[in-house]
Amino acid sequence: MAVADAGPEAGALGILAAGGRVPIMVAEAAARAGRPVFIVALRGLAVPEVARFSHIVVPIGTPGRVFGAFRGAGCREIVIVGSATRPRLRDVRFDFKALLLVTRYARAVLGGDDKLLTWLVRLFEAEGFTVRGAHEIAPELLAGEGPLGRCAPSPADAADIAIGIDYLATAGRFDIGQAVVVVNHRIVAIEAAEGTDLMLARVAELRASGRLRLSGRAGVLVKTPKPDQDRRVDLPAIGASTVAGALRAELRGIAVAAGETLVADAAETVAAADRAGLFVAGIPLGGVSS
Amino acid sequence: MAVADAGPEAGALGILAAGGRVPIMVAEAAARAGRPVFIVALRGLAVPEVARFSHIVVPIGTPGRVFGAFRGAGCREIVIVGSATRPRLRDVRFDFKALLLVTRYARAVLGGDDKLLTWLVRLFEAEGFTVRGAHEIAPELLAGEGPLGRCAPSPADAADIAIGIDYLATAGRFDIGQAVVVVNHRIVAIEAAEGTDLMLARVAELRASGRLRLSGRAGVLVKTPKPDQDRRVDLPAIGASTVAGALRAELRGIAVAAGETLVADAAETVAAADRAGLFVAGIPLGGVSS
Repeated sequence: MAVADAGPEAGALGILAAGGRVPIMVAEAAARAGRPVFIVALRGLAVPEVARFSHIVVPIGTPGRVFGAFRGAGCREIVIVGSATRPRLRDVRFDFKALLLVTRYARAVLGGDDKLLTWLVRLFEAEGFTVRGAHEIAPELLAGEGPLGRCAPSPADAADIAIGIDYLATAGRFDIGQAVVVVNHRIVAIEAAEGTDLMLARVAELRASGRLRLSGRAGVLVKTPKPDQDRRVDLPAIGASTVAGALRAELRGIAVAAGETLVADAAETVAAADRAGLFVAGIPLGGVSS
Repeated sequence: MAVADAGPEAGALGILAAGGRVPIMVAEAAARAGRPVFIVALRGLAVPEVARFSHIVVPIGTPGRVFGAFRGAGCREIVIVGSATRPRLRDVRFDFKALLLVTRYARAVLGGDDKLLTWLVRLFEAEGFTVRGAHEIAPELLAGEGPLGRCAPSPADAADIAIGIDYLATAGRFDIGQAVVVVNHRIVAIEAAEGTDLMLARVAELRASGRLRLSGRAGVLVKTPKPDQDRRVDLPAIGASTVAGALRAELRGIAVAAGETLVADAAETVAAADRAGLFVAGIPLGGVSS
């Protein structure tokens, strides 16, 4: 057995948990496979459900405590996972390790740089940890190919999806959000710093105010990974809030990159989409093999 | 003298006026040059100030009345100008000519297609009118090169501007809004259907909510024409509301394409920026000569 193998012999799995349900699902998957789990939950981001597992809660900005806690729990393999809205200042503390690191990497840390996650991976690796992707521990979290539920995109939806994918691939070299809403061949909203949920809320507002005049369900949310994203830490994720947001924006469906998108609470998420007549479809982009 | 010459001998200048102050400034420029002006003002869009000139107000959707009015006033040359927020339904009527045209051009008219303006130009030309750009009548409306006021971009601002221009050129083949906000090398907001003012409001909100944490003035609004825009009808415009929006978003300045951007009420707009310590700069993109 290679040392990097992910079986129980690799020791407890460490999970650095940011927001949302995905960290919980990774923990559950590891537990189901009989592997002990230790969670370091980021204050102000992680959901309370982390309490179901061995865990500590630490403020953002305390890498000294994070590394120490994982070492103390015997974790050599770490998954860094969860939604990454920027934290509120009151949830941030800096330990001594952080101050050392910040002086060395000031630009990556303070510059609002989205390559922060890539930098975080290198940091863990420099400390001797192995960073694994959430989907390596819980492959069932990945969106499959084709419709995930009962509803499927129409040919017109497929044309809108193709425009969204084309745009996102074109704009991908800029380090921005990777989601758009396309309606009738037209890109009506592009995500940058606001995140997918706020972008969907904007589409709902544009429709409500009459600035975007469409009758009934129209348009598609298209969400893909950045071309140069580190798949271990930065796979896009959808879940119940995405379906709810798409519904409020009166879209016809959601298209994601098959095999490269995490679906939180997939059964419930897809069931909610089914009830609403919304499609959720995995589009093969070939990114994983490239 | 060629028939297409724009002197007084070309007859009254027709102005199809949408929103904002720019149509007024075109009318003033023509009047200053001694040329009679006749304005067809679009209800719900045009500002009340059109009343200073010979004019009629018509609902959107009445091309039969528009063509008839311009012909009745002896106009052969038309400027189509003004801000183009999508109209409220109650301001729209369809005359018989519109119904004829709509059946012929349903997709361009109903599809929310931003190429609508290009189509509008062709429509006027098919009716025997010559369409002129606002900047041909009032070249003083165009942003010059370099800082327009007292404040100038710093080298760091110039780097952000370059990122914005690079992005907009890259994404330009998609028929979307042509403005972004760049802060510290990062694109934080991209305009699509919402328009520049709402995009700036979003940046202000992201900062207020702490989702975008920056201290003090930071970032630049970059606004350029689409690569394939018809310069006669679709030059981007900035004005007092752009400066006010950039201020609320606590930006450091505004960068536009020199020679390809209309500045409404330039003296007042630049003075407001000066008072606020905001730069407004014309960047040479070479688009006019290409």
